[in-house]
Amino acid sequence: MEILNGKIVSQHIKNELKSFVDNLILNGKRSPHLAAILVGNNGASETYIASKIKNCEEIGFKSSLIRLNENIAEQELIDAIIQLNSNDLIDGILVQLPLPPHFDEEKIINLINPDKDVDGFSPVSIGKMVLGMPTFIPATPYGVMLMLEHYNIETSGKHAVIIGRSNIVGRPMSILLNQSGKNGNCTVTVCHSRTKNIKEICLTADIIVAAIGIPEFVKSDMVKDGAVVIDVGITRVKDENKKSGFSIKGDVDFDAVSPKCSFISPVPGGVGLMTIAALLKNTLNAYNQQNRA
Amino acid sequence: MEILNGKIVSQHIKNELKSFVDNLILNGKRSPHLAAILVGNNGASETYIASKIKNCEEIGFKSSLIRLNENIAEQELIDAIIQLNSNDLIDGILVQLPLPPHFDEEKIINLINPDKDVDGFSPVSIGKMVLGMPTFIPATPYGVMLMLEHYNIETSGKHAVIIGRSNIVGRPMSILLNQSGKNGNCTVTVCHSRTKNIKEICLTADIIVAAIGIPEFVKSDMVKDGAVVIDVGITRVKDENKKSGFSIKGDVDFDAVSPKCSFISPVPGGVGLMTIAALLKNTLNAYNQQNRA
Repeated sequence: MEILNGKIVSQHIKNELKSFVDNLILNGKRSPHLAAILVGNNGASETYIASKIKNCEEIGFKSSLIRLNENIAEQELIDAIIQLNSNDLIDGILVQLPLPPHFDEEKIINLINPDKDVDGFSPVSIGKMVLGMPTFIPATPYGVMLMLEHYNIETSGKHAVIIGRSNIVGRPMSILLNQSGKNGNCTVTVCHSRTKNIKEICLTADIIVAAIGIPEFVKSDMVKDGAVVIDVGITRVKDENKKSGFSIKGDVDFDAVSPKCSFISPVPGGVGLMTIAALLKNTLNAYNQQNRA
Repeated sequence: MEILNGKIVSQHIKNELKSFVDNLILNGKRSPHLAAILVGNNGASETYIASKIKNCEEIGFKSSLIRLNENIAEQELIDAIIQLNSNDLIDGILVQLPLPPHFDEEKIINLINPDKDVDGFSPVSIGKMVLGMPTFIPATPYGVMLMLEHYNIETSGKHAVIIGRSNIVGRPMSILLNQSGKNGNCTVTVCHSRTKNIKEICLTADIIVAAIGIPEFVKSDMVKDGAVVIDVGITRVKDENKKSGFSIKGDVDFDAVSPKCSFISPVPGGVGLMTIAALLKNTLNAYNQQNRA
């Protein structure tokens, strides 16, 4: 069993990105610039945003954090996006989700200039991905693909079972693994809360991507010997032994499942780190696209 | 075994559309208007286009056919689309595919005003479909969904196996059947040319959608008793006994498979007719959208 080590792979990607930025600077160019908007101060969101900004700094990207009060009117948020859309010095824009309940997330995400939609959540980005056109791929599925590529995991003709059908993980994951071309060509099954006999289906999987958001949902009797298991779950579970008061649990019962796997990604230290690396790659792509024109 | 009768269901939908148009006319409104562009004179394309126009006439839609010579420059086709895009009296635009090889289909389809993209092939339309937003759904998968709805076929929790991963049938079909809500909630597996043990996978299917374009690909030993089988294949096969010189074959070995099915769609007389009905529904949706604004 080999660990799919998000720390190593993401560091590898960040090193590449840093070299690229160093080169830009050497050539008198500006570095890529990611702008993030955070509305309110949800604990998990604060952590994610802080990590994104820290990672930008590490590789020499500029970043801006626009903080808005939880109680602002929708128009204020819209105005902030419009300003970033038209600012030629901003390459990527993300709005940290979830937004407070009085915002229409779909509407807000739709306002982001598609050329700067580095989260890849807008209809245009998703549609281009489905059609196999160059686009921004949502960061988590993109990160998983980068991880599979790094470890040279054969996907062609394999049966991939995706647990979860969310717009930001399960659905795009299923499309990417099913597409023709390198790192694709899987036969893909998408399972979800309405799926019957999920255990039997998982037992036929060469690759399992668990993205259902239920801690330790995937048990050892659901996994066949030699399977590749990717754990996308990140749930905060109360833990009095931790200073923070919680620990992070994946969707896979790691201790029981890992002995059966050929490869498995741990939580933490797996996909989460890849997500940030993928976001940085999208930001660089946005920069390159805009500076090519 | 019950036949999924495309003739009956499409006529039912067309009757509804005709009533709607009759009502528009009674109220002094104009009727919906579909514009089709045909480049060159591919035999199958001529047949499809003629059928679309005939169906528009039947229900009182206006239609325009713009015929362009196979050898025109790309810009002429682009100009034709731009003109239709800005014409407020045109509700739906379709460019009949395939285009002659010197055209970039992706680029051309992208030029169609998303509000008039009644084929639903553009990235915006596809992206909105994936995200579950109101949009134009590609006509063939939409037609299949209308057929399942008409026959009250239970989909929730069922295992649907889609054979084929094309952008216009297999992929959207897999997304629609997998989505939450009425006529969705299937566990969906997408198979394709690289899939191993396709027979075993099909044998686990409650619903099979065959869209691989290989005549009689689905044999009786691939179908479990009581399955619902939807045949999307339309291949022209040489047939000296026919006046036209060819007959139309589906992807399913109908005679052998049908006795095992609870429901099965024939070819011809099945999904093909639904595709046109779905296109007409999309055109009416485009009309309603534009006249609401």
